[in-house]
Amino acid sequence: MKKIAVDAMGGDNAPKAIVEGVNQAIEAFSDIEIQLYGDQAKIKNYLTATERVSIIHTDEKINSDDEPAKAIRRKKEASMVLAARAVKEGRADAVLSAGNTGALLAAGLFVVGRIKGVERPGLMSTLPTNNKLGFDMLDLGANAENSAQHLHQYATLGSFYAKNVRNIAKPRVGLLNNGTEETKGDSLRKETYALLVADERLHFVGNVEARDLMSGVCDVVVADGFTGNAVLKSIEGTAITIMSQLKGAITSGGIKAKLGALLLKNSLYDLKESLDYSSAGGAVLFGLKAPVVKSHGSSNAKAIFYTIKQIRTMLETDVVGQLVEEFSRESNND
Amino acid sequence: MKKIAVDAMGGDNAPKAIVEGVNQAIEAFSDIEIQLYGDQAKIKNYLTATERVSIIHTDEKINSDDEPAKAIRRKKEASMVLAARAVKEGRADAVLSAGNTGALLAAGLFVVGRIKGVERPGLMSTLPTNNKLGFDMLDLGANAENSAQHLHQYATLGSFYAKNVRNIAKPRVGLLNNGTEETKGDSLRKETYALLVADERLHFVGNVEARDLMSGVCDVVVADGFTGNAVLKSIEGTAITIMSQLKGAITSGGIKAKLGALLLKNSLYDLKESLDYSSAGGAVLFGLKAPVVKSHGSSNAKAIFYTIKQIRTMLETDVVGQLVEEFSRESNND
Repeated sequence: MKKIAVDAMGGDNAPKAIVEGVNQAIEAFSDIEIQLYGDQAKIKNYLTATERVSIIHTDEKINSDDEPAKAIRRKKEASMVLAARAVKEGRADAVLSAGNTGALLAAGLFVVGRIKGVERPGLMSTLPTNNKLGFDMLDLGANAENSAQHLHQYATLGSFYAKNVRNIAKPRVGLLNNGTEETKGDSLRKETYALLVADERLHFVGNVEARDLMSGVCDVVVADGFTGNAVLKSIEGTAITIMSQLKGAITSGGIKAKLGALLLKNSLYDLKESLDYSSAGGAVLFGLKAPVVKSHGSSNAKAIFYTIKQIRTMLETDVVGQLVEEFSRESNND
Repeated sequence: MKKIAVDAMGGDNAPKAIVEGVNQAIEAFSDIEIQLYGDQAKIKNYLTATERVSIIHTDEKINSDDEPAKAIRRKKEASMVLAARAVKEGRADAVLSAGNTGALLAAGLFVVGRIKGVERPGLMSTLPTNNKLGFDMLDLGANAENSAQHLHQYATLGSFYAKNVRNIAKPRVGLLNNGTEETKGDSLRKETYALLVADERLHFVGNVEARDLMSGVCDVVVADGFTGNAVLKSIEGTAITIMSQLKGAITSGGIKAKLGALLLKNSLYDLKESLDYSSAGGAVLFGLKAPVVKSHGSSNAKAIFYTIKQIRTMLETDVVGQLVEEFSRESNND
């Protein structure tokens, strides 16, 4: 039985969306057990699942505007903290929250803890590509500054994830850079390039440019947290802007445009779906002793369901156990 | 008379698109004179303008895959190099090329030269926003590494451009960061933040996130060249991907979708137009003794026309002269 600790109080639509997603997951997967941390009365309003689910009541929760590290230290009974502690103490195998990202990162690092040998766990998401296969990018902003050693570890982490969770036999790893030539980039990129080329366990395909990520040039994209964060937010911002402009163009286009949009409805829906990557699950703070997964703050039940599915696959394949072994081997070799 | 040196041989559609853009500009603006550098016979095939235009013949040109610095050093008679040299020697006031970006940056730095006091000229473009006003961002990749002093200078450069060329009385300057709070970012961002806050000549509005750039949160965005380049390419890549997916969704959507698209034609055209920012001109290597402007490699005649218009405004407002004065005052104060 895979035990997943869920912060029922995190996110814009909590606890409704969280609990509804849990209901769906309990029905779909017979090998999971869910622990819901949060306000018992509110959770019960939405909980329909009756088996393999328990509620651990707490009044305290972390708000989206709480200062992350402080919140984790002071709100010891917050739903998110209790969920993380359940993992630390062996009562659960993974944590899910749609709450304060910074606080979840802090809870992951300080409560769940790093895999021995992993210096700086990175935030990783699967993002959409034209060919629908997606790519994993990390670090998306868990760290403001990274060394070449960190980036090298991200290549290993991302490769293990792509192999285990996304079933890609030989994940192509790319280094996000300002050009594809080997000599491109700042000193961090040049140093990282040398480490990636020298590591035969990786299938390193060289430098990749942000322009080509959505064309599927590689399966794993390695970036420092500052740049990765900027690229992620640029993709999000551009997609949101274009979709809202498309909507605006249709709305202001008169009756003809509205009729056209009606006829195009299915195609536009397909487009929206292809950009909505919530079926790939949430963002993983990867490099920790257990899966710690952040679902988007605006997650609906469907997104929560898919994040539970993702966590289930991570537990099923024991990707974290494999990483523990990999990094213990590495540190023995040092 | 404003004298503009144009590299007729740079870009995917050269010399046709270049010369046709020049024809349009000569007709529209009576106060400009164009010098066309390149293959005389080929240029003459397209040149219809008869006044205020001259051809300076050369057989040599820089190719898109030439190694930039080397090309500038070795191909001394290349059309781009001759155009830059015309500015250096006072025979022209500005340079335009749609050719090899790296080579134009090198020609700008080594032939035209920096404004005294500007440490690292930055590449700047005006990018689209929802409200159609756009924002200027620099550095977009002229440098792989930047210091806080460079970023501070970019704030000044961008403000002067927004004021003079885009007529924004009090340009709002934002620092691209991984969060809007004052304490966000790596050491480079924190140091830059302090410099920008302390400079009373700037209208600094604080940190901005890549997600919000297209919503028009500020008029000038300051970034290091590595991040700026990644953000620019992310925006481009996402826009291209979505537009091609939209096209694909329509094409594969059968007769109903095609009819819908036909009815929506004007609205979709508006959308495409609002993303096409070629009317804002090209990318300026800003901080040099004269306007050096890179038009997109795939520029058509319209894009070249608008880039000439942009250069004309830069010359008309003497934004470069103002910068020379500003930076000489600063270095006297040091």
